[in-house]
Amino acid sequence: MRVPKGFLFSAVEAAIKKPGRRDLALIYSEEEATMAGVFTSNAVKAAPVRLDMRRIQSGRGQAIIVNSGNANACTGENGTRDAREMARLIADRIRVKPSRVYVCSTGVIGVPLPMDRIRSRVDDLVAGLGRSSIYDVAAAMMTTDTFPKVIAKSVRIGGKTGVIAGVCKGAGMISPRMATMLCFLMTDLAVRQKTLRDALKTAVRATFNRITVDGDMSTNDTVLMMANGMLGNPRIGQEDARLHGVFYDALREVCEGLATLIVRDGEGATKLVSVEVRGARNDIDAEKAAFSVANSNLVKTALYGNDANWGRVMAALGYSGAKLLEEKVDIFFGDVQIVKGGISTRKEEEAGRVLRNTEVALKIDLHVGRGSAKVLTCDLSEEYVKVNAAYRT
Amino acid sequence: MRVPKGFLFSAVEAAIKKPGRRDLALIYSEEEATMAGVFTSNAVKAAPVRLDMRRIQSGRGQAIIVNSGNANACTGENGTRDAREMARLIADRIRVKPSRVYVCSTGVIGVPLPMDRIRSRVDDLVAGLGRSSIYDVAAAMMTTDTFPKVIAKSVRIGGKTGVIAGVCKGAGMISPRMATMLCFLMTDLAVRQKTLRDALKTAVRATFNRITVDGDMSTNDTVLMMANGMLGNPRIGQEDARLHGVFYDALREVCEGLATLIVRDGEGATKLVSVEVRGARNDIDAEKAAFSVANSNLVKTALYGNDANWGRVMAALGYSGAKLLEEKVDIFFGDVQIVKGGISTRKEEEAGRVLRNTEVALKIDLHVGRGSAKVLTCDLSEEYVKVNAAYRT
Repeated sequence: MRVPKGFLFSAVEAAIKKPGRRDLALIYSEEEATMAGVFTSNAVKAAPVRLDMRRIQSGRGQAIIVNSGNANACTGENGTRDAREMARLIADRIRVKPSRVYVCSTGVIGVPLPMDRIRSRVDDLVAGLGRSSIYDVAAAMMTTDTFPKVIAKSVRIGGKTGVIAGVCKGAGMISPRMATMLCFLMTDLAVRQKTLRDALKTAVRATFNRITVDGDMSTNDTVLMMANGMLGNPRIGQEDARLHGVFYDALREVCEGLATLIVRDGEGATKLVSVEVRGARNDIDAEKAAFSVANSNLVKTALYGNDANWGRVMAALGYSGAKLLEEKVDIFFGDVQIVKGGISTRKEEEAGRVLRNTEVALKIDLHVGRGSAKVLTCDLSEEYVKVNAAYRT
Repeated sequence: MRVPKGFLFSAVEAAIKKPGRRDLALIYSEEEATMAGVFTSNAVKAAPVRLDMRRIQSGRGQAIIVNSGNANACTGENGTRDAREMARLIADRIRVKPSRVYVCSTGVIGVPLPMDRIRSRVDDLVAGLGRSSIYDVAAAMMTTDTFPKVIAKSVRIGGKTGVIAGVCKGAGMISPRMATMLCFLMTDLAVRQKTLRDALKTAVRATFNRITVDGDMSTNDTVLMMANGMLGNPRIGQEDARLHGVFYDALREVCEGLATLIVRDGEGATKLVSVEVRGARNDIDAEKAAFSVANSNLVKTALYGNDANWGRVMAALGYSGAKLLEEKVDIFFGDVQIVKGGISTRKEEEAGRVLRNTEVALKIDLHVGRGSAKVLTCDLSEEYVKVNAAYRT
């Protein structure tokens, strides 16, 4: 996989939750980068989120340190001190201002970070820069994820070929109105700060904010993007619509790919399910209706059981708050129309067969307007319960 | 158990979904009763719900026919015709106007009612009046319920002792903003129509609307109350505050008891959990915060796993929309304070022991105002997934 110029990676084992895997990683850009970020809207924010939200005001950064196994959330003033120290430990060694180092944590909430273990691994972490791959970083970020999540895309701009690469982690506490658990995007393209910020916000709204695993919004969700300009392309701004379009489309594709990987790896998930609502009064109604279906435990358990239980879809549409007339609703499972005008077409066996695939498209037409929205979700299995009942033990 | 005067019960097997149990029941009052009802606010409403909503305008009724195994929801015009016929079949035999007979259905959505089987059992159903108990009715209403739900309470009014009795069914698709799946309340007290309606609405709001099993609101939720006045007491109205208070308190106790039974029997539930929020900006904020915690899959799986994972409670409070300051939040599991001022008291083992009980009280103080609310929920187990993945097969 191609990675953008000037980005170096490192990952080490710090045994933050338990030994046996790498859980501390560093992303470093050889030149200071333009940065943008999107953060959780949860009123309870982890210490590193609060730190990064202040630092991102500058629009500049050079490194991201990330750990899994501990979220450093609900840890009070000690948590804030620990997040600051993590940044400073890196800043001292790579010789940049601490304010240019961003900190991200993911894992269990409410437990103090084992700072002694982090301190003891920092020299190796920095020394290792360039010896780890972007996959090693993605692997070190994992909690209940079952595979590392990396997407990269080449972008041809001004006769030069840049790269937008992203890593993220997901699995649980995945819900709308948030970014995702953690996602880091890197590019060697030169992009204006305001352009980067606007493009990132728009792309996140259209991708990460359209996925749900369990409707639980995290305290740590963070998307950070670094553009170090090392490709030497003419700086991308909003004044050149074509250039901007090429950049935005590539960024959105990377975000979309990563968001899809998160849902595909949802805790206990056996299926990737898209829920598309059309014909709603407006886009807001469509999104409400789609999320209501995508978050319904009854719909999600039926999908897991390969049961084309469209009645539960109707019920979820009915309580979504979206305007609807029962007798106008059409529902498709894949290409099989299971509901026409609010009642069964009696094709439940055919629809049940569609559900046996690992990717399922649910399409709903409310026939009351022109609003539409599409969200991604997964099914709900016993494994989700098992993973989350035992997560800390 | 004492039942109110003048109410007769019957239950027969009609093999509506499958043979082997009674699934069709009748409640009959020897004298026409004053009636009140509360219905689902889901935009998708079952045919019998739509029928009953029109009939309840009269405030009068004499019988309720109820079936399990089929919800008669999303069944189009045929469904409406079937619901009407069910009422007429009874009305003809007990010699009352069809508009005095109410119809309730619960079970799978979107499948036509097997009317031939119902027709063939109606004679026996009516002939059996007086030979079945109120428990038989409760048992015939069950779907995924594991026990019949009946509560009765004596009320001493004007030197006479009346009874308020109720039956209900629950288990899944239990959520706020609704009544419950099905609940029938009967009393031999004489109550003014407006008084009955207001008292029922208030009691439902304080009890059935404060419980959640899975956050899914049903298409069939119905609470019906019949007061036949056969006790011969002075008619209860709002002008006599003391009398009204005695009546309302008893009604609320019956509703509270039934609502608790529904949660205790939540699909796959191993624990009854109360979530009480105090110190919120106002009662609406308190309710939002309590429901956000009570509906969180992550909180519910942790409760199932006896894991005092208060971080998930903090996260759910944080995304509830209720005003809060992280550093002011206190959380108690039973009598054990696990969070003080937003951070851990390190009493997780003690709190974990509290969770090993089958009844758990979660108490949260936001310390930002005087609003409070309490909701009932249950834990989320593999069994919930199993029950709902296989419900139709």
